[in-house]
Amino acid sequence: MPVNEFSLIRRYFSDMVFPHPAIVLGVGDDAAILQVPLGKELVFSIDTQVAGVHFPVDADAGDIAQRAFRAAISDLAAMGAEPLCFTLALSLPKPDEDWLSGFSEGLRAVARELSCSLVGGDTTSGPLCITLQVQGLCPSGSALKRSTAKPGDHIVVSGYLGNAAAYVQLMESVELTKSGNLLKPETFEPELAHASELFALAYYRPISRVDLGVALRQQASAAIDLSDGLLADLGHICQASGVSAAIHTNALPCYPELVQIFGQQRAHELALAGGDDYELCFTVAPEQLRNVIKLGEDLECPLTVIGEVMPQATQPIRLYDAAGVEQPLPAKQGYQHF
Amino acid sequence: MPVNEFSLIRRYFSDMVFPHPAIVLGVGDDAAILQVPLGKELVFSIDTQVAGVHFPVDADAGDIAQRAFRAAISDLAAMGAEPLCFTLALSLPKPDEDWLSGFSEGLRAVARELSCSLVGGDTTSGPLCITLQVQGLCPSGSALKRSTAKPGDHIVVSGYLGNAAAYVQLMESVELTKSGNLLKPETFEPELAHASELFALAYYRPISRVDLGVALRQQASAAIDLSDGLLADLGHICQASGVSAAIHTNALPCYPELVQIFGQQRAHELALAGGDDYELCFTVAPEQLRNVIKLGEDLECPLTVIGEVMPQATQPIRLYDAAGVEQPLPAKQGYQHF
Repeated sequence: MPVNEFSLIRRYFSDMVFPHPAIVLGVGDDAAILQVPLGKELVFSIDTQVAGVHFPVDADAGDIAQRAFRAAISDLAAMGAEPLCFTLALSLPKPDEDWLSGFSEGLRAVARELSCSLVGGDTTSGPLCITLQVQGLCPSGSALKRSTAKPGDHIVVSGYLGNAAAYVQLMESVELTKSGNLLKPETFEPELAHASELFALAYYRPISRVDLGVALRQQASAAIDLSDGLLADLGHICQASGVSAAIHTNALPCYPELVQIFGQQRAHELALAGGDDYELCFTVAPEQLRNVIKLGEDLECPLTVIGEVMPQATQPIRLYDAAGVEQPLPAKQGYQHF
Repeated sequence: MPVNEFSLIRRYFSDMVFPHPAIVLGVGDDAAILQVPLGKELVFSIDTQVAGVHFPVDADAGDIAQRAFRAAISDLAAMGAEPLCFTLALSLPKPDEDWLSGFSEGLRAVARELSCSLVGGDTTSGPLCITLQVQGLCPSGSALKRSTAKPGDHIVVSGYLGNAAAYVQLMESVELTKSGNLLKPETFEPELAHASELFALAYYRPISRVDLGVALRQQASAAIDLSDGLLADLGHICQASGVSAAIHTNALPCYPELVQIFGQQRAHELALAGGDDYELCFTVAPEQLRNVIKLGEDLECPLTVIGEVMPQATQPIRLYDAAGVEQPLPAKQGYQHF
């Protein structure tokens, strides 16, 4: 059965529509049309994930979709924007119906969770590659930026760090196993198997921090999402804001399982440089910290103060242990795209 | 020299910025921000081009950029929207500086021509794949759609059809030559060499019909851009509008060179089913036709009436020769994405 682009789109992607007065025209014409409400700004970001680079080639299609979508949404969360709609550019080697069904189910789960409509797309033949552009709304002038952190602000992160990177690490070990070395997955201790499930979940289904981002519009001084790793991403805040940062490594929020399996030092390295967490890292003026802590409790979102913003310095980020002794930075300080 | 994503972006893509009051925040944060002016709508479309599928792997980087950008802009033109800004998701196997320099030059040429700012992007390692999302503005309620053609309207196309498809055809012949068969490019007659340059230009630098699209907002009843071929794309207008179409094949605007090299029948097939023209196909009520012809003259944009909109029918498009005798449809009726 020849499957052309149009029947593909109709069959799998036509039901991700959640009426919103701002969406004038969705899928089905040359372009989509938005009427941005008075007093609101449109916030948008584009994100690509390539098979074999950003996720394993043989990963579950639904997992790939969820991961790509949640990673893209994470940029809106970091701006404090509410997701409105998305476009999807999908290249895939062949129109495999099982794969498309699983992929669209993954997308649909996130689209429903966030009431984020699919309003346009392009499906092409090619190596598996997923590009999503997400559009969100924000009251004019209230979006959170990277460039507005101030010395004296606290540095806060949501959730737990290092789990997605731990998953990548475990999978690499398994890959090595296949070639006859190192640990074998079937010989995983029960606790490692349990932890590996936790890590896989962090990798494929990062929690969308949209509610937190929206609530932080009034509270945070600057924000970014953690995609390339805490050191790299906090580095962007420092550079854009003209400040530096002091991080207390003992405060880094790591799962006990992470520390148990990798040891404390490696766990900290994964949390600092691992990437793929898609948690929010934000700065808060001291007088706002109490409100922010309360807000985290209300949203049942773990928040951890991990350091302070300092005046600009030649070394943008410094690490300190529990005794206040400066620590060396990990050799690898963030995801390198090449 | 290790080249990371951020230095790449800074070096090659930082100067495509054209201040506009609607652009609140461009490249450099988690997302871009637009303030859509009162009384305007935002029109946007995403478009992907994959190496070896949409263009030859060894094509000139600047040509690849121009083609991808102009193809994306074509969707805005078909809606009657004025380009405002674009985002770029670029996967490439390695950060080759020469390639990036050429690619960014191609983008820059189009960005400048249209005052269309780069406001965000994502560069990743992977097979060469270019995704552009273009954003434009349009007075609220005035965008041209596919769904509003009416029986009795004239069907008009801009420019000339079939040239880009002719280029693909010639290149396939050259490819066959490399394997030892068919015509050799070095043995091209001078007139074929000249025509092949014309066709290459049509393929890599389709003219952006933005001015035409904007002017047609008041004049056309429906519009689409010709990416997949006239039959396929006009078919979308027919389906969306609940109408059918009668096309006079002798009216199809083909270059004399196209007819000379391929013969009249094959030239018509390329014009009807070839794809990649990125011209506009639109419908015009009879009482507006005179204005539209005048408008084409003012813009120095060739416009040709090629047929009429008819009531809905089981066969959406019928072809007629100069004597009014119905012609068979070409076997291949449009670009198949798989």
